[in-house]
Amino acid sequence: MTLSSSPIDTIFADYRDRVNQSLDAYLSPENITNERLSAAMRYSVLQGGKRFRPVLVYATGETLGVPLHACDPFAMAVELIHAYSLVHDDLPAMDNDDLRRGQPTCHKAFDPATAILAGDALQTLAFHCISYAKTLDLTQKNKGIQLLSQASGPAGMVAGQMLDMQSEQQTLSLDKLEGLHQCKTGALIRASVLLGGLAAQASPKTLNALDTYASAIGLAFQIQDDILDVVSDTSTLGKRVGADAAHQKATYPQLLGLQGARQRAQHLINEALQALELLPNEAPYLRALARYIVERLH
Amino acid sequence: MTLSSSPIDTIFADYRDRVNQSLDAYLSPENITNERLSAAMRYSVLQGGKRFRPVLVYATGETLGVPLHACDPFAMAVELIHAYSLVHDDLPAMDNDDLRRGQPTCHKAFDPATAILAGDALQTLAFHCISYAKTLDLTQKNKGIQLLSQASGPAGMVAGQMLDMQSEQQTLSLDKLEGLHQCKTGALIRASVLLGGLAAQASPKTLNALDTYASAIGLAFQIQDDILDVVSDTSTLGKRVGADAAHQKATYPQLLGLQGARQRAQHLINEALQALELLPNEAPYLRALARYIVERLH
Repeated sequence: MTLSSSPIDTIFADYRDRVNQSLDAYLSPENITNERLSAAMRYSVLQGGKRFRPVLVYATGETLGVPLHACDPFAMAVELIHAYSLVHDDLPAMDNDDLRRGQPTCHKAFDPATAILAGDALQTLAFHCISYAKTLDLTQKNKGIQLLSQASGPAGMVAGQMLDMQSEQQTLSLDKLEGLHQCKTGALIRASVLLGGLAAQASPKTLNALDTYASAIGLAFQIQDDILDVVSDTSTLGKRVGADAAHQKATYPQLLGLQGARQRAQHLINEALQALELLPNEAPYLRALARYIVERLH
Repeated sequence: MTLSSSPIDTIFADYRDRVNQSLDAYLSPENITNERLSAAMRYSVLQGGKRFRPVLVYATGETLGVPLHACDPFAMAVELIHAYSLVHDDLPAMDNDDLRRGQPTCHKAFDPATAILAGDALQTLAFHCISYAKTLDLTQKNKGIQLLSQASGPAGMVAGQMLDMQSEQQTLSLDKLEGLHQCKTGALIRASVLLGGLAAQASPKTLNALDTYASAIGLAFQIQDDILDVVSDTSTLGKRVGADAAHQKATYPQLLGLQGARQRAQHLINEALQALELLPNEAPYLRALARYIVERLH
């Protein structure tokens, strides 16, 4: 987070520590008997990272007054899905990236076959950990699995990754690019916020406001990612910069220019902040998260 | 199935047709908007195949007197998991197989990146389809997802695939080989039978008997697979024969000899048939399935 002097920043760090501890315990080597598989899974999940999606789950839950332990299974599940998608996305047959979070990608640290299987197993565990959650009732578990599988499957994240590959060396319209990113990153970010709402058993009206908020910040997050790929450097970003241009991918800066992309992101953040006015309280954490998206440097 | 003159065979064909129709509708192109992803998923699931796992779900459910429509979501889910595992297993970075069910493998018909994503999406849909099932109550759905994720994840199928890769060019003891196959194929076969029991809300005693049955036939199924890899031919089998020897994989015939492997499989089938005696009825379908395992030619 950028606002290192803010008390909000401490809260987000607490959320990150909380999900890291939960994931560390859940992926304990005693639970996964194959040593190499266990090592590759732990390597892919426990190397750090912003934990943006779990932070969204917790911030939403806390905004709506639910204890954090009720949010743990959903926070873990969205990070497990995110981690699996990164491992598979980085594979030689996909984006062929060597660096992730400043470290060799899973298939470089291990090998491609192990990375495929580690990704597969991380996806399975996302659903496993919700189904075994002790802090959720059956309705919450089932709705959570519905939400997560809808967001991450062939109508969501995986479709977005497919579109992303197909968009290489293509000129996309702004509409098509937004559609791509609504699937590729937007769907899981939206699900993270809605899962926080589900943990808190939020009313349909509140869920609606959260949905508007989440859809706007999801897109803004991707626009900022595209911007950082142009203006950042590899050591700050922890992954190769200029990768989009190298893959000849359509991006917001390419379509709108840097300035235009920044304006579009800011416009979406304003939309998100407006949606929060419909919530029963000030939602300071969700406000801070929205602002963080366009201020972050990695 | 081999016993083409038997009425049992007609019943199993009905089960196959039933799951094929359900999967065809569920994977309808209208539900999966990305054309290439949809085509690769449909190609990987709807090319035929024995449907052994769905047949086990239906046969168990019908043995216990539950209507088949209550079994549909579990039957689809186990086949979706099986299909995803085959697509990923065949990848160049894994077993690098060109042929599956007599057709080019998914990555040959499409490309490796598409095959990775199609496999990922098929796994997601296995959990999606249970969570949205209209014929199951919340307890059944949640227990089903627990069972399936436990059987197919890093404590089950994926661990087995990892062990399988690691066993190449290694001499395994019989114990280790059985452990490998209990994970790689046994866990999902066992889950298929138990999911049929869950659809029928079977008693713990019945589930215990089903568990013994399922564990025995799961291992026998793999032994027969190993035998067929030695004695069959590519056109009968629909995939490359001699693949185990080419990958220098440990197999039952290699450890026990052909005759010894056949005896071990028959011994397991007898064990399975004995377990069925604890069921409230004759369980003719489950008996026929056990016998089919050692009689099948592909």
